[in-house]
Amino acid sequence: MIQVGIYGTTGYTGVELVKILTRHPEVKLIFATSASSAGKTLADLFAAAPPIPLIPPDQAPLSQVDVVFVCLNHGDAAAVAQTALAAGVRVIDLSADFRLKDAAAYQQWYHQPHPAPELLTQAVYGLPECGRDQIPHTRLIANPGCYPTSILLAVYPLAAANALSGTLIADSKSGVTGAGRVPKQHTHFVDVADNFSPYSIGRQHRHLPEIEQTLASWHTSPPSLIFSPHLLPVPRGILSTIYAPLSGHWTEAKLYELYQSRYANEPFVRILPPGQVATLAHSVHTNQCVIGLTLTGHTLILTSAIDNLIKGASGQAVQNMNVMMGIKETMGLV
Amino acid sequence: MIQVGIYGTTGYTGVELVKILTRHPEVKLIFATSASSAGKTLADLFAAAPPIPLIPPDQAPLSQVDVVFVCLNHGDAAAVAQTALAAGVRVIDLSADFRLKDAAAYQQWYHQPHPAPELLTQAVYGLPECGRDQIPHTRLIANPGCYPTSILLAVYPLAAANALSGTLIADSKSGVTGAGRVPKQHTHFVDVADNFSPYSIGRQHRHLPEIEQTLASWHTSPPSLIFSPHLLPVPRGILSTIYAPLSGHWTEAKLYELYQSRYANEPFVRILPPGQVATLAHSVHTNQCVIGLTLTGHTLILTSAIDNLIKGASGQAVQNMNVMMGIKETMGLV
Amino acid sequence: MIQVGIYGTTGYTGVELVKILTRHPEVKLIFATSASSAGKTLADLFAAAPPIPLIPPDQAPLSQVDVVFVCLNHGDAAAVAQTALAAGVRVIDLSADFRLKDAAAYQQWYHQPHPAPELLTQAVYGLPECGRDQIPHTRLIANPGCYPTSILLAVYPLAAANALSGTLIADSKSGVTGAGRVPKQHTHFVDVADNFSPYSIGRQHRHLPEIEQTLASWHTSPPSLIFSPHLLPVPRGILSTIYAPLSGHWTEAKLYELYQSRYANEPFVRILPPGQVATLAHSVHTNQCVIGLTLTGHTLILTSAIDNLIKGASGQAVQNMNVMMGIKETMGLV
Amino acid sequence: MIQVGIYGTTGYTGVELVKILTRHPEVKLIFATSASSAGKTLADLFAAAPPIPLIPPDQAPLSQVDVVFVCLNHGDAAAVAQTALAAGVRVIDLSADFRLKDAAAYQQWYHQPHPAPELLTQAVYGLPECGRDQIPHTRLIANPGCYPTSILLAVYPLAAANALSGTLIADSKSGVTGAGRVPKQHTHFVDVADNFSPYSIGRQHRHLPEIEQTLASWHTSPPSLIFSPHLLPVPRGILSTIYAPLSGHWTEAKLYELYQSRYANEPFVRILPPGQVATLAHSVHTNQCVIGLTLTGHTLILTSAIDNLIKGASGQAVQNMNVMMGIKETMGLV
Repeated sequence: MIQVGIYGTTGYTGVELVKILTRHPEVKLIFATSASSAGKTLADLFAAAPPIPLIPPDQAPLSQVDVVFVCLNHGDAAAVAQTALAAGVRVIDLSADFRLKDAAAYQQWYHQPHPAPELLTQAVYGLPECGRDQIPHTRLIANPGCYPTSILLAVYPLAAANALSGTLIADSKSGVTGAGRVPKQHTHFVDVADNFSPYSIGRQHRHLPEIEQTLASWHTSPPSLIFSPHLLPVPRGILSTIYAPLSGHWTEAKLYELYQSRYANEPFVRILPPGQVATLAHSVHTNQCVIGLTLTGHTLILTSAIDNLIKGASGQAVQNMNVMMGIKETMGLV
Repeated sequence: MIQVGIYGTTGYTGVELVKILTRHPEVKLIFATSASSAGKTLADLFAAAPPIPLIPPDQAPLSQVDVVFVCLNHGDAAAVAQTALAAGVRVIDLSADFRLKDAAAYQQWYHQPHPAPELLTQAVYGLPECGRDQIPHTRLIANPGCYPTSILLAVYPLAAANALSGTLIADSKSGVTGAGRVPKQHTHFVDVADNFSPYSIGRQHRHLPEIEQTLASWHTSPPSLIFSPHLLPVPRGILSTIYAPLSGHWTEAKLYELYQSRYANEPFVRILPPGQVATLAHSVHTNQCVIGLTLTGHTLILTSAIDNLIKGASGQAVQNMNVMMGIKETMGLV
Repeated sequence: MIQVGIYGTTGYTGVELVKILTRHPEVKLIFATSASSAGKTLADLFAAAPPIPLIPPDQAPLSQVDVVFVCLNHGDAAAVAQTALAAGVRVIDLSADFRLKDAAAYQQWYHQPHPAPELLTQAVYGLPECGRDQIPHTRLIANPGCYPTSILLAVYPLAAANALSGTLIADSKSGVTGAGRVPKQHTHFVDVADNFSPYSIGRQHRHLPEIEQTLASWHTSPPSLIFSPHLLPVPRGILSTIYAPLSGHWTEAKLYELYQSRYANEPFVRILPPGQVATLAHSVHTNQCVIGLTLTGHTLILTSAIDNLIKGASGQAVQNMNVMMGIKETMGLV
Repeated sequence: MIQVGIYGTTGYTGVELVKILTRHPEVKLIFATSASSAGKTLADLFAAAPPIPLIPPDQAPLSQVDVVFVCLNHGDAAAVAQTALAAGVRVIDLSADFRLKDAAAYQQWYHQPHPAPELLTQAVYGLPECGRDQIPHTRLIANPGCYPTSILLAVYPLAAANALSGTLIADSKSGVTGAGRVPKQHTHFVDVADNFSPYSIGRQHRHLPEIEQTLASWHTSPPSLIFSPHLLPVPRGILSTIYAPLSGHWTEAKLYELYQSRYANEPFVRILPPGQVATLAHSVHTNQCVIGLTLTGHTLILTSAIDNLIKGASGQAVQNMNVMMGIKETMGLV
């Protein structure tokens, strides 16, 4: 059994992680921390959650665990990662702290110096379908952002084939759990219901440099990127509609073959037959990324659906743990 | 033209009031206050609102208006009412401060001494369909609560006929605007969507004494009351399902006749044919209270639907203003 | 491994059943029928369903299975049950065909002669928490209706104590999956969203005689019943708010003790501490019935929440199968 | 008073039209037809509609009206238009029958010969902000489609300045009223709620040629077009996120000036300050098109919001009537 702990349990990703880990046949949850709700149980905060006791983070028994999941805000996560690594514990960080390789880029986008730049070189970006091999060799996983997961998995086969050109446009739509659990005016039910809102469109959102960095690692002369998030009146799920101008000559059949062969052995990526489109309903409550291909002239329109809390966060974190610890990758996730 | 001002414009009832008043052919809106957003316009806060300037409450030009609408929290409203009345301005108070006639009951339910007990005798409970005559003779209207409006209009014909017996049960369901605009955990989109929650059920909610006080003014030996509110995943609307045990012998036809004759000349009450039920869709975005009658043995099941922001608050406030000022009661409301 | 088949797979209960059974460690799904979609797979109809082939019902290989689940309309289910029983296969019927013990009552409520009255005596009403012992001894389970499950589990401790008096009122609210998958005007998104509708209130709904029959089996001189269903703008879940006038003298503490002891060993019933209320969020996506107790004078207000597709249909059906087949009752359900 | 009639009153656009026209101070509604519900009133079908009698279309008293609104399906509308025009009545057609100027294009996209090609030359495409002058001189208005309205108003200033280049991408999201009132599987509440679905993406939707035809009338060498509609889980509203590559050198300030001056006197177009984005909440329940401008490199990202039933259909139809009949353009619409 793998002994695990969770830091920051009372956000949406923490609760989803508890749900997955308590069903995982090879995992024992040793501790769950909460700075704000220590002393309560998770069931006090979430109607359907199990009554797991919440402890203060500084009382976490690090010596008893093999792996910790860090579900804290960026900036706060790095210090916990340092402590855990120093104690010999592996870290899967769901925050943004170790996603960007460049501390200067981190400072530019997150408006603070990187809290642990010395760890950046050992952090591995945990998108197993696009780089599974490195995961067992690290002790620090940077779990990808939700939007980047939906976009990167959709364009990876094209990028790996150097087939992108011009400007890649990702028009993404996310459910409200993506905006966090702390109540804000823009997450009030009355502001969200019957509404639909773009935000941080163009080149403003912090997931943009994360997507660009990864694209650049795959593609020679990568395309420029426009990324426009929108808030959907649903609790969960992301659908990205991606407009990818292609270089070279392609047919839908050839594109389908490219995608099918690239993802042939992937349990968590499903390529729809040409012409079919992905919808939120294809992926919510699963760890699947479902991708549709629609060729229009020289532009491939990709529709890519994930559950932002599962494949876009906690499910992928468990997938990374499974790979890191050498157990079956799908364990606890199907 | 009636010159009006609004205190507390940036809550849901204030915004709805602005919408109604700016369409009202006999009203000129002179000022709109906001303690928290003074200096901004209403359009800065609400995407579809007009750019009405928000001023600090202490700069309100009371000498220029005939009527003020007070959309503040209970406790804060009374002081503004005092000031306005002292300046010779009529007051329509949408808070709870003048609904209960008894200062001791106010203290019991609102956990503070009544802020202006000397005004209680002159305040008139503004439910025009059940007491229109008193409204022109007062300068201070206590605008009824949203739940009480839906329940009292539904039981008034029975109560006025002394036909109730036993325990009256009102199982009420409200949209989220009823919970206010300040973001709370229980109004977060993710907590409300796909959910449905009872709260303050039985005899716990502050609207209970308001309903009982009014029932007692109509009915000899009024029935006891159970009142159970629930939060619906919709922005607006209240539906009350009311179980009213009857004394005497009734048929649906006789009940329908009782209701039809009682409300024959009421523009804002609609009695559905026997067997039909009221739904939110009957009333949202209107000032109507729509009532269905279903007789089951000796129990009349009433379904009563209103828009909580219109007939349950700002529409009824304007209706009261129309009656108070002697203009056509439906003006600005159809 | 228990070999099972499903008749009528493409409604909401059929799809939910497939989801549960494919995760059940002791079950092998041998066949799934669909009269209207034979030749397709379930994935052709539901975005997230597995690609299980759908066969015509008359090609179902009954000789290969131990148990069949019948998810057909009432009237159609009985004939399939006859065939399966004749082939030596156990039957769990999710329709209404075997819930009422009295063929005359069936005819009155379902407007047709009972299609298989000779089977009524052997059918066992499958509410394990209130009669687990009979289940292993029958080959025909009548799986309870969704509303009755939410109401009966909530009142069972009182009824078994003969503590009910007067009129029991159940004001129930259900998500739209309860209305079936065939598109109707009243299940159109635009009719349901932002709306809330009572229907068949009082003593009109077909679940009423089912509740009364069971109450009468528990309680001497059972109370009369009013049952008012409402349609909620959510996909799934039922919340029943139940007003139960009590005989005798009770406190919340004594009631809590009654409920706690009655359900002490039940894995699928959760009694909330006195004063807490059940919400849909307590139960959706689980096989739990969650019950809150609020005493108001001599009336106990019960709030009872289930997932209508799980504890209210397919989850309870699997629970019944587990009990019938002598395996662990929670298998596949936690 | 303008005497008007409606053909096809029981769809969403018909009902919205009734709501607008019954408030319009210069209009008298003479008749409302419905082939399927003749003999009923509109209130029998819609909870909040007025009890307007529905008559069979062949009994419509054409001689008593000045204008008819045709809210029928494409293919059916043209014949009614012919009849009305022959009777000397002006026609505002909300169907697609007279939007495309080319009968061959109509046949290609609507899979049937054009039902009245002789009328195509006199039909005027009724987008007042982009061609108000022609409207008073015709007796036949082709009321624009909902998606085209949201897209064309957003790109008109750029197109009129010949400033577009490359491929224009419109990623549009619509509420469910856009899919019509007849119940279908894909408009079932359970299919739509918590979901989000692309459909007919790329160059498949019938609104594409309508947009292209109009763009070509404005822009020399118009850009190619990709148009991707999506279904939102909301009743009403369209938000189009439009990616417009620009020729020439632009700043946000210059673009804002271009838009401001182009729409300076338009009561129904609102240009947001640079950097602000349009949301559904800006426009639902109004006749406004609200447009946001976000410049990203050489691409202008436009966010354009309308209410699909008002500015996208019935409101715009009344606006067209007002212009055609020479009365104030905003009458009945503010």
